[in-house]
Amino acid sequence: MCIFCRIVKKEIPADIIYEDDEVMAIKDVHPMAPVHVLIIPKKHIETINDLTEKEVDLAGKIILTAKNIARDLKISEDGYKLLFRVGKNGGQEIPHIHLHLIGGTKLFEEIRPA
Amino acid sequence: MCIFCRIVKKEIPADIIYEDDEVMAIKDVHPMAPVHVLIIPKKHIETINDLTEKEVDLAGKIILTAKNIARDLKISEDGYKLLFRVGKNGGQEIPHIHLHLIGGTKLFEEIRPA
Repeated sequence: MCIFCRIVKKEIPADIIYEDDEVMAIKDVHPMAPVHVLIIPKKHIETINDLTEKEVDLAGKIILTAKNIARDLKISEDGYKLLFRVGKNGGQEIPHIHLHLIGGTKLFEEIRPA
Repeated sequence: MCIFCRIVKKEIPADIIYEDDEVMAIKDVHPMAPVHVLIIPKKHIETINDLTEKEVDLAGKIILTAKNIARDLKISEDGYKLLFRVGKNGGQEIPHIHLHLIGGTKLFEEIRPA
């Protein structure tokens, strides 16, 4: 079972900041910024490539959850990034969809061919 | 009217690679990678902060559209990034929601406090 499924099942601890029937949000253990939260669907779906039309609501729910957490953490006005990594070129490390919510400061960013 | 609303209305040209009733996808004019596509809701919504629960389907549709374009452009297997910039700290430049689909090569990435 993947690490996020184990966190969802409370088999391993995490700093959970939001949870409902469909999604969970946890603090990233290696934060890239003052706010770095991962929003995870409870259902095990490996990557964005594996989402089906049936899961359009779930995909939207992940985005709306991130938006609400940004509001609760008072970073909405200053801004933030929402990032899905997909596969090797995207740098995805855990094969269970997760959305990075990154903010809390002005962010330097560079994305370019390696 | 914002530049993306004008593109949606075909008042200014863009390299449109997908379009339906709800969303449009165009090539970014300043690509950061071999594939750099913007997926835009046709409805003018300034930022992710302005999404409401009524738009959960639309938010999901944007993600699913990006996934389908990645498949059509044959970058699904190698991977890619999906990025929403929000507000000043997120580096959002145009006040109309757009999702960056970035891929086509291994991507170097650094996101850190500036």
